[in-house]
Amino acid sequence: MITSNTSPDPNSPPDIYDLTIIGGGPAGLFAAYYAGLRQLRTKIIDSLPDLGGQLVALYPEKFIFDVPGFPKILAKDLAANLIEQAFQHNIKPTVALSEFVQDLQAVPSDTPAPLYQITTDRTSHFTRTLLICAGSGAFSPKKLTLPNAAQFENRGIHYAVKSKAVFAGKHVLIIGGGDSAIDWSLNLQDTAASITLIHRRNIFRAHEHAVRALQATPTKILTPYEIDSLLTDGDRLIGAILHRTDKHEKHPLPFDVIIAQIGFNSSLGPIKNWPIGIERASIRVNSHMETLLPGIFAAGDVTVFDGKLKLIATGFGEAVIAVNHAKQRIDPAAKLFPGHSSEMVAQAPGIEVPTA
Amino acid sequence: MITSNTSPDPNSPPDIYDLTIIGGGPAGLFAAYYAGLRQLRTKIIDSLPDLGGQLVALYPEKFIFDVPGFPKILAKDLAANLIEQAFQHNIKPTVALSEFVQDLQAVPSDTPAPLYQITTDRTSHFTRTLLICAGSGAFSPKKLTLPNAAQFENRGIHYAVKSKAVFAGKHVLIIGGGDSAIDWSLNLQDTAASITLIHRRNIFRAHEHAVRALQATPTKILTPYEIDSLLTDGDRLIGAILHRTDKHEKHPLPFDVIIAQIGFNSSLGPIKNWPIGIERASIRVNSHMETLLPGIFAAGDVTVFDGKLKLIATGFGEAVIAVNHAKQRIDPAAKLFPGHSSEMVAQAPGIEVPTA
Repeated sequence: MITSNTSPDPNSPPDIYDLTIIGGGPAGLFAAYYAGLRQLRTKIIDSLPDLGGQLVALYPEKFIFDVPGFPKILAKDLAANLIEQAFQHNIKPTVALSEFVQDLQAVPSDTPAPLYQITTDRTSHFTRTLLICAGSGAFSPKKLTLPNAAQFENRGIHYAVKSKAVFAGKHVLIIGGGDSAIDWSLNLQDTAASITLIHRRNIFRAHEHAVRALQATPTKILTPYEIDSLLTDGDRLIGAILHRTDKHEKHPLPFDVIIAQIGFNSSLGPIKNWPIGIERASIRVNSHMETLLPGIFAAGDVTVFDGKLKLIATGFGEAVIAVNHAKQRIDPAAKLFPGHSSEMVAQAPGIEVPTA
Repeated sequence: MITSNTSPDPNSPPDIYDLTIIGGGPAGLFAAYYAGLRQLRTKIIDSLPDLGGQLVALYPEKFIFDVPGFPKILAKDLAANLIEQAFQHNIKPTVALSEFVQDLQAVPSDTPAPLYQITTDRTSHFTRTLLICAGSGAFSPKKLTLPNAAQFENRGIHYAVKSKAVFAGKHVLIIGGGDSAIDWSLNLQDTAASITLIHRRNIFRAHEHAVRALQATPTKILTPYEIDSLLTDGDRLIGAILHRTDKHEKHPLPFDVIIAQIGFNSSLGPIKNWPIGIERASIRVNSHMETLLPGIFAAGDVTVFDGKLKLIATGFGEAVIAVNHAKQRIDPAAKLFPGHSSEMVAQAPGIEVPTA
């Protein structure tokens, strides 16, 4: 996989892609496959650290039953298949991960095709056409709603583990019942001075084998527990009052630091302000999957049109339509129809049988 | 698989289905899956003897590369997967194979939903909604274009082998270079008095192992050969003048019977006369995939609309949209959105960890 993320040299001409896809979930990945089939130089930008979108970030271990041709498939396996499929052409997509898109600008173009500049929190990307497969938007961790939680963010309250060293020798409170809470509880055993895990339910969504492994460690697991309030010493977080919700009991727990792994929120973010035809948190498209701006397309859960259904199977079809129409925006002489894949690759050549 | 094809008792009330799907190819099969998900009583009618459509009838051994989630898959394997998926619900589709649809009639309905009668060459079917996934239409064998070939059809010239006994003790000429020509050449070794196989090219599309097996039999294989003209004795076919096309040589070959396996033509047939909005050999649909008649939908290669692409991936999406809108035609109070399949089936229940 080829990744970018390098800072551009302001003196070099912009590196212009044919198609830039915002969102590396199922619709974006299948769009990337089709873009390769159409020989488009393609870039995928995603706010997540991995390709796969919700399939990987939200429900990797869930079975999906309504993907055509799969009586059932794990979400993570579908993501892996789509990634393999997207990277199977001679021309591979460039991938820019952990980037949040911000601004969209039309730029003077030296060709009949449009030219757009997309600015992210890291750099600028230049593209002839744009396909927004952003689903419900970029994911960000859900935050604690305690009144003074915001003031301790990244200095006592963490929503991601960027470096284990931050937690070395610390008494750590981990919050959550999913895989990430359990996995970090296991992963910091050799780093933290102590770990307490609290979860608001008795039932953990995490893998059974991971929960069982954690039960074999010195970690104290408390359920059903929530934080009632934070304990502070001046400007410093020193612990919390925990609330055992089934018995309405409260008691203090001293600790140094919180890691909260309580899920994600998603939001279109700055895309909502782009002048492309936003309706609430969706993008209106025509039957070519094109927005109000020429060369800017959308596909998948982010789109709205009469008859729209937010399903993976429809998102795939929308992605195909968008990419093939994008090809015509770049090269108006190109055929809309991509051809049948079964006829593009050499099949068995046939058996020669000269006559007797 | 539940099949119908029984003659209806004219005195019994008609057996009304919620959804009837014409065409058991990829779009029709995925529509049947979704119909089961929506708990619709569904029937599939197809002119072919098997489900799978072109995937099975025309290119079972070809790889397809543009089905979402499959970096590559054999057409016959995709068909098998789609059939398994379509039959996985508690409510299974009824299947009526080897039936050719002819007439469409609106019938007085006792409910707000419409009621249609579809007549085939065998029987009548009654349905609240209809989804036409007919692709390029029903398949029929390509016929020999020799001037007097028609008069010998089924009495000297055969386009299908319905019973091997017809060929017992006969000198047989088989025409074709695909799997069916080779397979019947092998299959009639124990039945025919002799077999000659001619093919217009030196290259056989059939499986190599089958061609090699045939070469080990007494069958005379002649390439590149065509029939120049039929030899007759009064009302009886007695042989043909064969034409060796590379050397422009002609010579007579006496035989009793021809089996021609030279491919298929497809045609919408009588559907072309239905008052649903036919444009050439396609059916115009709106963004709900509905035709001009309420409750009659189309999906897949047979449809036309602005932006249409005839691909399997788009056909799947169209099928989903059609079925969910058909559900609303039957039950206007039903939600359009079918829900997420991953949330309908019990997932792993989670691990209970009571507090320490």
